[in-house]
Amino acid sequence: MSNSKAVIREEVHAFKRQRILEEARILFYERGYTGTTLDAVAERLDMTKQFVYSYYKTKGEILVDICASGARHSLEVVEQALALNASPTNKLKQFAREYSRVICEQQLNVTIYLREEKNLSDQEAETVHELRRAFDKRLSALLNEGMRAGEFNIPDIRLTTLAIGGMIGWATFWYRPQGRLSMPALMDGMMELVLRTVGADKGRDTSSGSEFPSARP
Amino acid sequence: MSNSKAVIREEVHAFKRQRILEEARILFYERGYTGTTLDAVAERLDMTKQFVYSYYKTKGEILVDICASGARHSLEVVEQALALNASPTNKLKQFAREYSRVICEQQLNVTIYLREEKNLSDQEAETVHELRRAFDKRLSALLNEGMRAGEFNIPDIRLTTLAIGGMIGWATFWYRPQGRLSMPALMDGMMELVLRTVGADKGRDTSSGSEFPSARP
Repeated sequence: MSNSKAVIREEVHAFKRQRILEEARILFYERGYTGTTLDAVAERLDMTKQFVYSYYKTKGEILVDICASGARHSLEVVEQALALNASPTNKLKQFAREYSRVICEQQLNVTIYLREEKNLSDQEAETVHELRRAFDKRLSALLNEGMRAGEFNIPDIRLTTLAIGGMIGWATFWYRPQGRLSMPALMDGMMELVLRTVGADKGRDTSSGSEFPSARP
Repeated sequence: MSNSKAVIREEVHAFKRQRILEEARILFYERGYTGTTLDAVAERLDMTKQFVYSYYKTKGEILVDICASGARHSLEVVEQALALNASPTNKLKQFAREYSRVICEQQLNVTIYLREEKNLSDQEAETVHELRRAFDKRLSALLNEGMRAGEFNIPDIRLTTLAIGGMIGWATFWYRPQGRLSMPALMDGMMELVLRTVGADKGRDTSSGSEFPSARP
């Protein structure tokens, strides 16, 4: 088998796995995890149950992939922001915007995770918890960076980390693709609120001196 | 039957209903709604299934009570804050503190709601949605009050309402009664973050003039 054939074969394999995941996600969301059989997943794909089994050995394996997805993408976003060659304020801006996007894009995955976490084995649940803890740690590191640079003013870094995560993460429960706010507007709005939370909006407000128009002689 | 006997009888009825709810809540949380039978609830109470039936006709009735509880308490908190004879800033302070307390106290109810909402009938789900919409509307009204009074500076009231709700509501997923922060510290910390979100912390910071120590002659 030539090399390019191997590559194509791998791509087809990944594509089929992805298709199974997509249909399972919809069923888990609509009927719940325990209410969904691999037969039903196969039916939606117009394939045999055997086809599904050749990509996922158990229904549990699909659930792990779905549950880890939101946490994995969230961690990527904060890692990418930290790696920027930019000020902490600009890193946080990118983080807030991209994390908002990820939460909206991963809405079904995150919803299923929050609903069905109890169906993961202890070890599987721990894998996702580790990703979530890493996310919190890296976001705290970014807030610390801004404190050291004198750009942020945060009384409690740990609480502020959780508050920022929640402010955006809660969109899981209210975001509607056809809602009032466009995705860019939502990303900008959240960015502004996150900057306020860390006290990074002060500099701009006070440096203009507009609040003391006649303070100087 | 004397009047006081009727009162006692009512109290006993409410108490027994409450006990059933408490045990069902633990089972719904640990085993999931579909994994819990009324038999199991009766067993935990050391009573017969018939006993449970005389207070709740179906398992679904218990779920509705649990799911509506968090939303009902949250709405109460914002109504109480709005009814205060106080400035919008002080109303928001009370709201942020008390809503933080409610989310922690209602943690199991809210978790079960978010997990098991799909097991409610359309009408039952709508009852809870109405409470949640009323909460958002009343919180938006409070933010509007602060804008009109010139105490808040909010570019998008609707988004900020959802952000504040999420910042605190997310504690459902991380709050631990034996965690790092005491309840009063958590309430104070969240209050501070909420004030920043609406731009109500500015006044205090700039009026002290500490950022312009030598600006006046």
